[in-house]
Amino acid sequence: MALLSHEGIKEQLTQLDGWELDDGKEIVKSFKFKDFVDSIAFVTRVAFLAEKANHHPDISISWNRVTLSLSTHSEGGITENDINLAEQINGISS
Amino acid sequence: MALLSHEGIKEQLTQLDGWELDDGKEIVKSFKFKDFVDSIAFVTRVAFLAEKANHHPDISISWNRVTLSLSTHSEGGITENDINLAEQINGISS
Repeated sequence: MALLSHEGIKEQLTQLDGWELDDGKEIVKSFKFKDFVDSIAFVTRVAFLAEKANHHPDISISWNRVTLSLSTHSEGGITENDINLAEQINGISS
Repeated sequence: MALLSHEGIKEQLTQLDGWELDDGKEIVKSFKFKDFVDSIAFVTRVAFLAEKANHHPDISISWNRVTLSLSTHSEGGITENDINLAEQINGISS
């Protein structure tokens, strides 16, 4: 899985609502929910997508806020695997 | 719920395996698991304890590692609520 170029990432992010490139090596999005239980429910759904894709975001939960960070660590940056999972996550977060 | 003194916290932490005082305002512990699914399973169990206690740790998940941070934000530091939840979490993590 080849690294995306900086331009390639920027182009992909125009289609990915809410995701931002952080430090050039990961894409990050924060999600806000009603409460802690809704945060955990979302994280559980993300976890099933991640496990199926065999690609796992870093996840931070602070009560009603969940922040996800995606990177392909083996490649040291962003690949299509990150974009694909971000798309799937957006699909369950609307 | 009154803030614990620095000495009070130190004394409590001697009974709380793995928890450390961070910045004087929160207690933190990292847990390592076999894989991502085991991390999520643990977080789900912690979430039920937290919701029941109406006291919610900040949670970070990075594949097989989960870091929990407990603080009583309304009091600006550590109270018995934090110690009690840390004890319960240790009870499910052995």
